[in-house]
Amino acid sequence: MSAARAHLALPHGEVPLPAFLPDATYGVVRALDASDVGDCRVSAVMMNVFHLMQRPGSTIIKRFGGLHRLFGWERPIITDSGGFQAYSLIRQNPKLGSLTDDGLIFRPEGSTRKINLSPEKSVQLQIRYGADVVICLDDCTHVQESIEAQRESVRRTIKWAKRCKQEYLRWLDAEESLNSPRRLIFAVIQGGGQLELRRQCAEELLAIGFDGFGFGGWPLDAKGNLLTEVIAYTRELVPREFPMHALGVGHPRHIVECFRLGYDLFDSAMPTRDARHGRLFVFEPEEPLNPSTGNWFSYLYIQDERNIRSDKPLSSTC
Amino acid sequence: MSAARAHLALPHGEVPLPAFLPDATYGVVRALDASDVGDCRVSAVMMNVFHLMQRPGSTIIKRFGGLHRLFGWERPIITDSGGFQAYSLIRQNPKLGSLTDDGLIFRPEGSTRKINLSPEKSVQLQIRYGADVVICLDDCTHVQESIEAQRESVRRTIKWAKRCKQEYLRWLDAEESLNSPRRLIFAVIQGGGQLELRRQCAEELLAIGFDGFGFGGWPLDAKGNLLTEVIAYTRELVPREFPMHALGVGHPRHIVECFRLGYDLFDSAMPTRDARHGRLFVFEPEEPLNPSTGNWFSYLYIQDERNIRSDKPLSSTC
Repeated sequence: MSAARAHLALPHGEVPLPAFLPDATYGVVRALDASDVGDCRVSAVMMNVFHLMQRPGSTIIKRFGGLHRLFGWERPIITDSGGFQAYSLIRQNPKLGSLTDDGLIFRPEGSTRKINLSPEKSVQLQIRYGADVVICLDDCTHVQESIEAQRESVRRTIKWAKRCKQEYLRWLDAEESLNSPRRLIFAVIQGGGQLELRRQCAEELLAIGFDGFGFGGWPLDAKGNLLTEVIAYTRELVPREFPMHALGVGHPRHIVECFRLGYDLFDSAMPTRDARHGRLFVFEPEEPLNPSTGNWFSYLYIQDERNIRSDKPLSSTC
Repeated sequence: MSAARAHLALPHGEVPLPAFLPDATYGVVRALDASDVGDCRVSAVMMNVFHLMQRPGSTIIKRFGGLHRLFGWERPIITDSGGFQAYSLIRQNPKLGSLTDDGLIFRPEGSTRKINLSPEKSVQLQIRYGADVVICLDDCTHVQESIEAQRESVRRTIKWAKRCKQEYLRWLDAEESLNSPRRLIFAVIQGGGQLELRRQCAEELLAIGFDGFGFGGWPLDAKGNLLTEVIAYTRELVPREFPMHALGVGHPRHIVECFRLGYDLFDSAMPTRDARHGRLFVFEPEEPLNPSTGNWFSYLYIQDERNIRSDKPLSSTC
């Protein structure tokens, strides 16, 4: 199976599909400047509104005219909404904040500050920051949580998606519509491992109407295996003409697997973080891209004696 | 007073004088790649043979064809000999090694390795690494050490300089002499605060014959003040046509002061290290370059709230 679309047309350019987006959580891919990232032919990066609103903060981002100008990055930016952070920070540690139907309240550890993020505010910030793709605030879960928790997450995700869409439309009217293509809005499909809830979530979100969809929730089971069945099923719920983003999927084997299932976009901090710690992924160009074997790539530990001594490119595909 | 020469002609290009060389101790200016350093219009960098022989080590440096190719730096490199490291590591902590007339022996902490560095080996490595300017191994002191220690340091520095010069000449014969300009060799003048010892050292080194000279020994007194009198006196011992390097001098005020005294070359890790920690030096372009006031530059703390919020260049001279 190949991607239904060849590219995603966005205000800051076209993103050829499929695309892996490095996470530039706080606006930068650590240890690299924007020109290095561009030189690596990265077509778009993923930033995170929940982190950016705290550091450097909205005042500074807006003062500099948005994320593109502040970070010197001229290609598209997709901003995540903060839903995953609500999950990973607040759901895992309730004393850091709370989730209600109105959004999330976060109290950073060791700080008296309180951060409110409603569905409207998340969309508003993403737009004012200049994101090319806005993602609706969602209520994220782990597949192991109870069916009640999954049901509640789907209910809230749909409710928030409606409010996000309204906010997006309000801004769309205000924005110069002369600029073509317009910025897009994606919604996130939740439901954990419950296929029926995934279906319900997808149908409701399709009815509200979005430009694309994300597979939401932690994409791995407790053993670290990709939730292939649920991911495949969820893709089939959404017509092929809509691009789908496998949120947080970044392991090469998982990317190939999700691509085979019809996903177009991927993001993760893992490949660049691993690289900073000396572990690189390299293609084995002779091997077919078979998701079940994974023989088509290998790990390269750059600090190994033989690699330190080598003056060859990392891979014959470089 | 201005520099007697307009530039230093070296195998990898001309260095306009005066020049400040950032310390790329282990081959890189930390947090920057060679193209960033080049973009800052740095004309040459200072590396350190004592550190490089340990990491990445001579085998790798030679395998990659020398420092220029290994680190992707195409402009001149001056390599320090290891004399200052012998001072700062061994003299301050004798259990890490010892100094004899044959050179230094260094036992890195937590390692069973033993590193020998003789005058000949220091020159040999600097040449094989591809340095544009080789610096003789010297026996460095602090100005507060006893006159006996200073006398011993001068005796050994002269003795080593002779051996370094011989080794340099041996390699010069072996090298293709078609390449013009040739790599240069500098010797270092020691003597602490003893003017008579400085004079003796300078005269002996001039008699051996070098292309340039360094002011050796820690250049500050116990209070952190520049040893202006000794630095001035030492410069006067050396005819103006020889370039002089104020080794380890990097504070803007000290650079201007030493330049006024006739020094041409400066190096320090301090400006780039301070920058990594958020303290920058900026010119105040309206103020004259008066060494005694220092009003012509100021500190800028990049993490200050007003600087974080500013979208202006750091200085009107940028």
